Amino acid sequence: VRRDLPVDETPPAGYEAILDRADAAARLLADTTPAERAIWLDAIADALDAASAGLVPVAAAETQLGTDRLSSELKRTTFQLRLFAGVLREGSFLGATIDHADPDWPPAPRPDIRRMLRAIGPVAVYAASNFPFAFSVAGGDTVSALAAGNPVVVKVHPGHPELSVEVADLVIATLRDGGAPDGTFGLVSGLETGRRLVADPRIRAAAFTGSLHGGRALFDLAVSRPDPIPFYGELGSLNPAFVTAAAAAERAELIADGFVASLSLGVGQFCTKPGVLFAPVDSGLPAMIAERIAAVAGAPMLNDRLRAGYGEMLADLAGRPGVAVLAGSATPEADPAPTALEVPAHTFLEQGSVLAVEVFGPAALIVRYRDDAELLACAASFDGQLTATIHGADGDRVVPALLAELTERAGRVLWNGWPTGVAVTDAQHHGGPYPATTAVRETSVGTAAIERFLRPVAFQGLPDELLPPALRDANPWGLPRRIDGVLVAAGDRPA
Amino acid sequence: VRRDLPVDETPPAGYEAILDRADAAARLLADTTPAERAIWLDAIADALDAASAGLVPVAAAETQLGTDRLSSELKRTTFQLRLFAGVLREGSFLGATIDHADPDWPPAPRPDIRRMLRAIGPVAVYAASNFPFAFSVAGGDTVSALAAGNPVVVKVHPGHPELSVEVADLVIATLRDGGAPDGTFGLVSGLETGRRLVADPRIRAAAFTGSLHGGRALFDLAVSRPDPIPFYGELGSLNPAFVTAAAAAERAELIADGFVASLSLGVGQFCTKPGVLFAPVDSGLPAMIAERIAAVAGAPMLNDRLRAGYGEMLADLAGRPGVAVLAGSATPEADPAPTALEVPAHTFLEQGSVLAVEVFGPAALIVRYRDDAELLACAASFDGQLTATIHGADGDRVVPALLAELTERAGRVLWNGWPTGVAVTDAQHHGGPYPATTAVRETSVGTAAIERFLRPVAFQGLPDELLPPALRDANPWGLPRRIDGVLVAAGDRPA
Repeated sequence: VRRDLPVDETPPAGYEAILDRADAAARLLADTTPAERAIWLDAIADALDAASAGLVPVAAAETQLGTDRLSSELKRTTFQLRLFAGVLREGSFLGATIDHADPDWPPAPRPDIRRMLRAIGPVAVYAASNFPFAFSVAGGDTVSALAAGNPVVVKVHPGHPELSVEVADLVIATLRDGGAPDGTFGLVSGLETGRRLVADPRIRAAAFTGSLHGGRALFDLAVSRPDPIPFYGELGSLNPAFVTAAAAAERAELIADGFVASLSLGVGQFCTKPGVLFAPVDSGLPAMIAERIAAVAGAPMLNDRLRAGYGEMLADLAGRPGVAVLAGSATPEADPAPTALEVPAHTFLEQGSVLAVEVFGPAALIVRYRDDAELLACAASFDGQLTATIHGADGDRVVPALLAELTERAGRVLWNGWPTGVAVTDAQHHGGPYPATTAVRETSVGTAAIERFLRPVAFQGLPDELLPPALRDANPWGLPRRIDGVLVAAGDRPA
Repeated sequence: VRRDLPVDETPPAGYEAILDRADAAARLLADTTPAERAIWLDAIADALDAASAGLVPVAAAETQLGTDRLSSELKRTTFQLRLFAGVLREGSFLGATIDHADPDWPPAPRPDIRRMLRAIGPVAVYAASNFPFAFSVAGGDTVSALAAGNPVVVKVHPGHPELSVEVADLVIATLRDGGAPDGTFGLVSGLETGRRLVADPRIRAAAFTGSLHGGRALFDLAVSRPDPIPFYGELGSLNPAFVTAAAAAERAELIADGFVASLSLGVGQFCTKPGVLFAPVDSGLPAMIAERIAAVAGAPMLNDRLRAGYGEMLADLAGRPGVAVLAGSATPEADPAPTALEVPAHTFLEQGSVLAVEVFGPAALIVRYRDDAELLACAASFDGQLTATIHGADGDRVVPALLAELTERAGRVLWNGWPTGVAVTDAQHHGGPYPATTAVRETSVGTAAIERFLRPVAFQGLPDELLPPALRDANPWGLPRRIDGVLVAAGDRPA
């Protein structure tokens, strides 16, 4: 018997119970040790891996994404859980800092002050459609919020409700078996419930991956609360790629291969899809791109709503003055194959933001530029981006200026690569200035994502036995700490 | 000849020139080295120290704060500049992180990714009235924003315009002599100009110290921009202090001494003034407080507007049902002496937030509680605070629960101390949940304040010579870095 799926609004009584339980769990969870939480994350990863053969087909049926891609995405998800377990065991994330009393500190004697980071409180996570595992119920936002010691309430994406329930059941059972407080994890659904959630006084932070329109609406609710909360929204990006004249002369075929592969990956349904490519006007690159696009078969998109939106946005862009279809079609099939539009750089610059719009799906705009000055002007025309890519050559004279321009505008700058495929690492930054995100300093991918869900607390003059373990003189958790201005490695005792 | 002082609105042409210059300076400044900026901060500190004999009397005439206090505040300010110079030389603030390419990384080979923090862009700083040096033109917000490599535009506080101009002239001249870009520092004035500034597209972050009302209004403007920006507002706090029965029995006289001294310091014009004290109903503490308050002479407040607001708020609070005057007067003199009101805890709890209001000036509310349960209920009734203080005794059984309650609500928790006097250190946290601040994760005092004005950028696959120095293999700046998951101390070469 198939159970009720979370596609409608969560009924008020159920919603209240979930939020009350999350609220009640918050302080208990904040007081668990990082080592305990690491065990839970590892256990969730193990449970997901063990359930892989059952989960992947459910995901495939709901999202149209293939089982290869979904299996890989599930591996990424369980790897991410284990990586955060490692972050918890290493302990730097707590930012433990000890300043001993100092009678000579200017302008007045310094008391003993010790600071650490602590869980921020219940977190609302808005799941994305396009990563049913990695940016959904047990995805990066959930994992980093849980790792930080917060209860999580996930707002289900309606694109994969059955998978969401199966993953949630597994997460809840694993947390329960591991001894986590009741209420550590909950699931709600529905558009209105999602709006209610971000305004709920029991919620202390929210994370979102989705559209500019939807994300901004939730951001506006979060900041207009009587008590505003941090809202970490990843909203959208064009991910422009710039091919220098030297690179186009050196290896246009290779660039065309890579671009079309990145553009078509997952039917273009990635926030890091390269949506605009700048090519020298006299290069053969556009023709090579057209040739490769013609060889890519159509494939179904995630759902009918996205498919319809894709068709509308593509037709709108294709209908702008000066824009032509280079390859594919401005009125794509039901299962769309990639499409490239083209426009001269001077038109792109004249029309400004009208042509710099994200079309979610397998489409890109090829902009033909005349010279380096025009290339740099195009680069300078962008607002905030998740990524920006340069394809250049050794000793390429335009590159330093181009790199400087893009470093101002993007969260990640790539050299001779493609932005799809966001590695989960310490150095990753998946973020960027608005409108790429609503929080320019934060990342939703990589270990730094945990910072979003912690807040500092300083303790002044507390006797050792009243301090949290992380700040006691004996360093019982073996943390790396900053003591009187000096980083002291894990395990070392303070002087 | 006394020059024009910045008390009126900055004229539009002047405003545009200042903002354009800040905008133009931003990228140049972001590309300066931390070592260069450290020299500038030290030079500003030296210049301020050298000008001390001239500046302190100007400050004293404008603020009514005494020269002793102002000299100490100036020392704090120059110490703070030098402390941030040290932060720049040490280099951890850049968060340099290197993940080398790894073919075995799950679920797909990892490219070389390197991340560091970079200046966020021009910062608006709203100066406070009550710290004419330390939270004003060259105060903590300005210094942390400049240290991070950002141009700063200060909105002058009208309470000390002459001092503001003198300090600004000195900062501008020192930066110019040190070779900083034109536009690194600017000064604007006027209420409307302040509103315009936070909405200005050239401004990328804002910091504010002041009232809940004024701060929330600016926050609302910052977040309703087409491109919302971070707004770091420190708005207000009651700084409740809780005296346990055991502590009151052990050392009531000492506690009364400390409380009245902290309450009256700077005529109560500190954001960390203890505004509420909880005392056991049967202790002699309120009487001892009354006795000490009677011995404190009146003193002028910063300006007539604050004095009028103080009188109104105090009268309002004193007129609430169940509130009585314990010492001082609900209709204070022109130069107010401290005043204590008193109320039973059950009335405080019944009336809720009506009695939990910050009265900016030398007033406090003494709440008499009957038992530990009532004490804990009072602690649990507070919303976000900059500080919360416990006066307890060894083995005091109520303390763990009280500490847990306050750790949830305050940015800094003190034991047997007083919250006024915020030491500038690494471990300091001067912040807290809303309404103490608009940004629960940030501090405006201490070296961590620099984090507010930096944003991450990741570089993927860049050749070494195109990387910023902080991320090159050779580590030319000798930074502490995290390399492939391991913290590598400054000076060590990567493996």
